[in-house]
Amino acid sequence: MIADQVMQAVSSERLQRLLETLATFGPGIDGGMNRQALSEEDLQARAWLIDEARKLDCKVWTDAGANLFIRREGREDLPPVMTGSHVDTQPTGGKLDGCYGVMAGLECLYALAELNVSTRRPIEVVVWTNEEGSRFSPGAMGSSAYVDPARLQTYRNNLDVAGISVGEALDAHALRFADLPLREKIATHAFVELHIEQGPVLEQANVPLGVVSGIQGVRWYQVRCKGASAHAGTTPTHMRRDALLLAMESLGRIDALAEQLAGDDKRLTFGRWSVSPNAINTIAGEATFSIDFRHADPAVLDSFDNALSACLPADAELTSLFSHSPTAFDHQVINVLENACDATGLAWQSIRSGAFHDAMYLAGHCPTAMLFVPSRDGISHNPKEFTDPAQLKAGAQALAWSLVALAEQP
Amino acid sequence: MIADQVMQAVSSERLQRLLETLATFGPGIDGGMNRQALSEEDLQARAWLIDEARKLDCKVWTDAGANLFIRREGREDLPPVMTGSHVDTQPTGGKLDGCYGVMAGLECLYALAELNVSTRRPIEVVVWTNEEGSRFSPGAMGSSAYVDPARLQTYRNNLDVAGISVGEALDAHALRFADLPLREKIATHAFVELHIEQGPVLEQANVPLGVVSGIQGVRWYQVRCKGASAHAGTTPTHMRRDALLLAMESLGRIDALAEQLAGDDKRLTFGRWSVSPNAINTIAGEATFSIDFRHADPAVLDSFDNALSACLPADAELTSLFSHSPTAFDHQVINVLENACDATGLAWQSIRSGAFHDAMYLAGHCPTAMLFVPSRDGISHNPKEFTDPAQLKAGAQALAWSLVALAEQP
Repeated sequence: MIADQVMQAVSSERLQRLLETLATFGPGIDGGMNRQALSEEDLQARAWLIDEARKLDCKVWTDAGANLFIRREGREDLPPVMTGSHVDTQPTGGKLDGCYGVMAGLECLYALAELNVSTRRPIEVVVWTNEEGSRFSPGAMGSSAYVDPARLQTYRNNLDVAGISVGEALDAHALRFADLPLREKIATHAFVELHIEQGPVLEQANVPLGVVSGIQGVRWYQVRCKGASAHAGTTPTHMRRDALLLAMESLGRIDALAEQLAGDDKRLTFGRWSVSPNAINTIAGEATFSIDFRHADPAVLDSFDNALSACLPADAELTSLFSHSPTAFDHQVINVLENACDATGLAWQSIRSGAFHDAMYLAGHCPTAMLFVPSRDGISHNPKEFTDPAQLKAGAQALAWSLVALAEQP
Repeated sequence: MIADQVMQAVSSERLQRLLETLATFGPGIDGGMNRQALSEEDLQARAWLIDEARKLDCKVWTDAGANLFIRREGREDLPPVMTGSHVDTQPTGGKLDGCYGVMAGLECLYALAELNVSTRRPIEVVVWTNEEGSRFSPGAMGSSAYVDPARLQTYRNNLDVAGISVGEALDAHALRFADLPLREKIATHAFVELHIEQGPVLEQANVPLGVVSGIQGVRWYQVRCKGASAHAGTTPTHMRRDALLLAMESLGRIDALAEQLAGDDKRLTFGRWSVSPNAINTIAGEATFSIDFRHADPAVLDSFDNALSACLPADAELTSLFSHSPTAFDHQVINVLENACDATGLAWQSIRSGAFHDAMYLAGHCPTAMLFVPSRDGISHNPKEFTDPAQLKAGAQALAWSLVALAEQP
């Protein structure tokens, strides 16, 4: 079968070389990366990718969001199968987050070229612009604007810390790559994104491949508990209204709520704190904390929303900071990815994504799913980000199998 | 009886005028005070006090710590009865903290002068330097150096935020008041400090006078709980080590310990917090908080010290920041103060002081006790600091009765 042959042609050495070459554009501290979206380093990396694409006889387009499309034509003029991720990094990022998905896609094109096989449908490798959101807000800018082009007009006014707007950076990109034809959103047969897990689940389970069922939804809240600031020495306990203790009691109730709603699936974090006046000998007059609650089931998130205020003191201020619905990936694409994992002969498991990815937006446009490989110690957004080369190869093999299988579909 | 006569001669109008005049030196925001120790405003206030003392035919001394002694001679050359407090304020302080004790002492001298009575022992009104500790560290500098003069050599090197040392400020004071004779520590029959409560106890009980049994001891600790910083979205609950949750669990155990040791007397405050990296979507890698625990019984404080580390995670860092033993005031002086309160015909109650005062150090030198009057809403160190003039008068009357009764003792 052709998918098996292409999978076998995936080369770990070539994949490692691709990753190493990409890492020469925008090296960061401690051996990590700092390649901000649409920076000079990013543009140089894109120029290299375009050269690679042309070596492989692929067509290249860009679009109004500076997304880059590298297309290997198929036997028939049908909507393509797409894969890809992003090549921008966090300021103190690693070499794999996003980059792995793009380089593995390129490696699949190399394997196809090496075997000189053709697929029924075209296969495209895509680089989505500014997924990290660290230079320009928001993240997943390129993929979200691709799916809903109206978003780009809003994004264009956003500034980086140097005062350069998204619009200016996009215009500079367009000038630099003026020879590339422009394209708009096209019908797509399926999108598959391969990514490192950025969490500890696969490593702890000693499973090299994950088929991602979906991306959990998230609720971000801020809670401000109000007490009465008073002298720690002169105020008897029964006359106190200690905002910190009110916050603690609320925490206990919120935790119990999340436990009741989500059980072992509970992902609840109180990460940001501010206590006022924040003095050793003064009872807290205010305690403010954040809530990050995530779940894959929209009904659980809704129940959390509805029950949250009952966990707080009556005069506490509850502010919703951010909310995103869960994404459920396409069952048919998931089924192909599961078959691909089986084809590698390696163990795999179903996993949900705790982090956001470009695939979250693509799922609103075409049948979409994701593959994960393990992250050592669950570490990401860090120069220490690492995945064993054998596992990186396995992920690229599962991707190659999937792309070919999807591209052969009528 | 002479004590009753002097008590009746105390004038609310004169006391209010004295407080208002003192408040002209160093007005602060919102109608409050900002008279830092040994500042120009403080020196001007002292010059006015010296004028007042001379109008009353009193002798005036200062000492190496810039404490000011205003002495009304007695019939016999015996150790004097002292009263007093401080006239420096917090940067956003009120008009009563410290100032009330000094002005009430001065009002007692006015009442004695008006009646033209003499007491067996001399009576001295003292201004202790830098009680607040807000310009120079530590607080209660003047009274602690008076009791143990060796302390002053250490204090002299301490700097204010402008880089001026205690030594330079004391030298400038000595130059400004070069005409004042210097004095060292003298034998003292008793010290009585009248002060606002700075807490809500008397007001809530609707009792205008408090006889202070002692000053509770205090323990200050810092606890650093160590977790593992990780992604809030990708890290399952059972793989987390959330420093914030470790801190919360510790809080529960520390609270239970304090409750067990102190019961209704518990005064436990977790006022200062720092969470790292303090981001909404990142599990806390470190959570640091302060403990302020106070009690009047040294055995309770010791038990708290001994049991505290068992309340914390094994790898938590526990740092002792400050420790002060409880002060028990002198029973005979307390008995005189109780009789003085009875003499006013007003309700009074025994109370312990939650805050530190100059009397804490004087108690190491001579028989000492304190009187409290209510603080509206328990507020102090704030422009809103307020006590009803009738209650201020009652306190000054109890003080007058006490000073005369003590000064008549053989």
